[in-house]
Amino acid sequence: MAITPAFDQASRAQMPALKVAILGFGTVGSAVARILCDQPAHSPLRLTHVYNRNVERKRVDWVTGDVCWSSNIDEVLASDADIIVELIGGMDPAHEWISRALTSGKSVVTANKKLIAKHGPELSALACKHGAALSFGASVAGGVPVIDALQEGLAGDQLYKVSGILNGTCNYILTKIESEGISFEEALVEAQRAGFAEADPTDDVDGFDARSKLVILSRIGLKAIVQPEQIHCDSIRRIGAIDFTYSHELGCTIRQISRAERREGQIYAAVQPALVPIDSPMAHITGSLNIVLSSGKYGGQTAFSGHGAGGHSTAVAVVSDLLDIARGRSGDNVRPQIAADVLPVTGNFTSAHYLRFTVHDRPGIVAAIANTLAAHSINIDALLQKPGYNKDALPFVVTLEQCPTEQLEAAMRDLRKLDFLVHAPLTMPILTKEL
Amino acid sequence: MAITPAFDQASRAQMPALKVAILGFGTVGSAVARILCDQPAHSPLRLTHVYNRNVERKRVDWVTGDVCWSSNIDEVLASDADIIVELIGGMDPAHEWISRALTSGKSVVTANKKLIAKHGPELSALACKHGAALSFGASVAGGVPVIDALQEGLAGDQLYKVSGILNGTCNYILTKIESEGISFEEALVEAQRAGFAEADPTDDVDGFDARSKLVILSRIGLKAIVQPEQIHCDSIRRIGAIDFTYSHELGCTIRQISRAERREGQIYAAVQPALVPIDSPMAHITGSLNIVLSSGKYGGQTAFSGHGAGGHSTAVAVVSDLLDIARGRSGDNVRPQIAADVLPVTGNFTSAHYLRFTVHDRPGIVAAIANTLAAHSINIDALLQKPGYNKDALPFVVTLEQCPTEQLEAAMRDLRKLDFLVHAPLTMPILTKEL
Repeated sequence: MAITPAFDQASRAQMPALKVAILGFGTVGSAVARILCDQPAHSPLRLTHVYNRNVERKRVDWVTGDVCWSSNIDEVLASDADIIVELIGGMDPAHEWISRALTSGKSVVTANKKLIAKHGPELSALACKHGAALSFGASVAGGVPVIDALQEGLAGDQLYKVSGILNGTCNYILTKIESEGISFEEALVEAQRAGFAEADPTDDVDGFDARSKLVILSRIGLKAIVQPEQIHCDSIRRIGAIDFTYSHELGCTIRQISRAERREGQIYAAVQPALVPIDSPMAHITGSLNIVLSSGKYGGQTAFSGHGAGGHSTAVAVVSDLLDIARGRSGDNVRPQIAADVLPVTGNFTSAHYLRFTVHDRPGIVAAIANTLAAHSINIDALLQKPGYNKDALPFVVTLEQCPTEQLEAAMRDLRKLDFLVHAPLTMPILTKEL
Repeated sequence: MAITPAFDQASRAQMPALKVAILGFGTVGSAVARILCDQPAHSPLRLTHVYNRNVERKRVDWVTGDVCWSSNIDEVLASDADIIVELIGGMDPAHEWISRALTSGKSVVTANKKLIAKHGPELSALACKHGAALSFGASVAGGVPVIDALQEGLAGDQLYKVSGILNGTCNYILTKIESEGISFEEALVEAQRAGFAEADPTDDVDGFDARSKLVILSRIGLKAIVQPEQIHCDSIRRIGAIDFTYSHELGCTIRQISRAERREGQIYAAVQPALVPIDSPMAHITGSLNIVLSSGKYGGQTAFSGHGAGGHSTAVAVVSDLLDIARGRSGDNVRPQIAADVLPVTGNFTSAHYLRFTVHDRPGIVAAIANTLAAHSINIDALLQKPGYNKDALPFVVTLEQCPTEQLEAAMRDLRKLDFLVHAPLTMPILTKEL
């Protein structure tokens, strides 16, 4: 059998450039336009349409003259554009517009993690049906080409675990708390001021953004279809400088960790703040950086890190997807043979745990906690208490030996009833270097 | 214009699996065979031929029955195999065999960095001419899919710098010296015993292996054609435990760093042991791990790390390339539009430097060194001397402010003439966190 990609390439070379329409001319959209306008003359891509609400206020002089600026989505979707770049975000109307574009045979490149997490398989099937491509390399870890790496570069492996620091906002906030000893609230304000957090930070700090990305990584890397709602999320809102103090004493730091593992016909998955050893790859990721780790049956652990957000990094991922399509390949639909399975999802990881209590001090507290844990067959590993705190709100930390999360949760239900607690204890898993 | 990769895919699905011939059934070859035999029934790849000298001693029972085992290369090259996997290594006869395979329209997947560094452009042109694919994802950093990432995932960026720890043997030896305080010779013996170094370690410890990989990264990432001989290499043979002691005092550690930068129409490139800050990504790479960093105009710095060697990691890269070809794409020849330029190469980086002297102690030594450096307009940054050494072979370290390597080299020619030296001074660049 002859393989003739060079012939395909030759015919491509004689074809006109693919026409690209950008929907949404914000930070990422304008960065994509900038890169497209910077391409050499023989580029296989040409920017032809920009859609935005009230597009006139978006118009810039560095975009070449023959681009159509439009506030009419019907006009753009009915145009001769070959590829639609969807950068408006959110579920609606992005879902409808992408569906319409694919149905009309246009390919779509999107950075919309929320939409792809929820409707990726359905949209990929739609793309496939209409002979179009759907690529979403920009939806996870921005400029770090991890989707491509899991899908292509590690295609020869059988991946069973993906994990990472997938939300730059959380990482920025946590490393601010760590380096400056400030509170979560103060760090959040700093992140908002620096443009790393939204006015409403819920999606980021409560884990929903990272969860969408984990769903996509699970699909691409673990070949498992998971719904976002199936994955347990813990917020980082309760992490304070004191938790870093205790973590450091344990040879660890704290990061928002997203992890998913395919094991015995199930997907183990969670997004939560966790203690990670100070010499682990995760611990070295500071500020708004992202990292993704994958573990494969044959190749062991591989790590990818870089700028996960920002207009330019995300735009690189978008343009890489565009070039991919221009080369006659596409994101997801060229390999329907790699089917993803629908698997049950659990958050019942087994690990050591960190418990931070804040109590009204009185005799018998440690005994009460120890008895409750013992009643649930959970072993205490260590008890840490720094001096110098007010006895009315005395913080201390208990670390536990390995146990399943569900076993701990049962114990926590009893622990939360103890009358000396100022507020509910904070729990975090303590991960090993390999996660 | 319609984009119809799904159609291509559909026609592929009805095609028989591509027939794969493995040349060389050593560690990597048998690992590739193992993964191919583990593939699901509908895999687009089927192992059909294994070539090795005296192949009978290689025969294993877990390879399915209809594979042709052969010691006759002409037979294998004339067979109906669609893809040749070249894993014999070295220049000859690999060069001839790959050329013959490509000329007959067979695609080739190879892990042969030496051959691809030297003859990659010529072989890619040959592949293109005959409508075949040539892929070499396994030639750099083994299982870390960096070739794919630079070529596909970061295609939308303009990369101007690539660097990394590309030789696991050197990294194993250096981190052994660091952690155990042993000599280079002792660490080499340990590396040989552990299977991380060859009986003749020249290619690894003197930098030639890493240099081949840097040539390939420069071509793929920086779009620059460089000949291996053009890149300056320094050996790690002279690094001792004492250099780690002094480096740690400077907030650094020592790694064999390969780096290439495209700037002002030139390629700056070198492979050498260097001081890197203890909090840099390079410093965290221990043992036989590899890391590659790329810097792009738009996306900033991205890092890729993992197992750079070993049968299974390299086999993952080979099989990923095979799957890529099976999907109707190919390694290098589908994008002749991304031409690489032939550029002049220089090793004249500007950086701070570390100089370790070993002297017969007598008055006036520091003055003599300082005067010589001053005569070449080089500023001393610091002088470090640990107590407790023999005055007949007294080691001490001088660090220098930033200067071009060539300026330092001129000064070194004078410094080497000084009569109190026990042996020639050791020089290493001191790199910044960004390299």
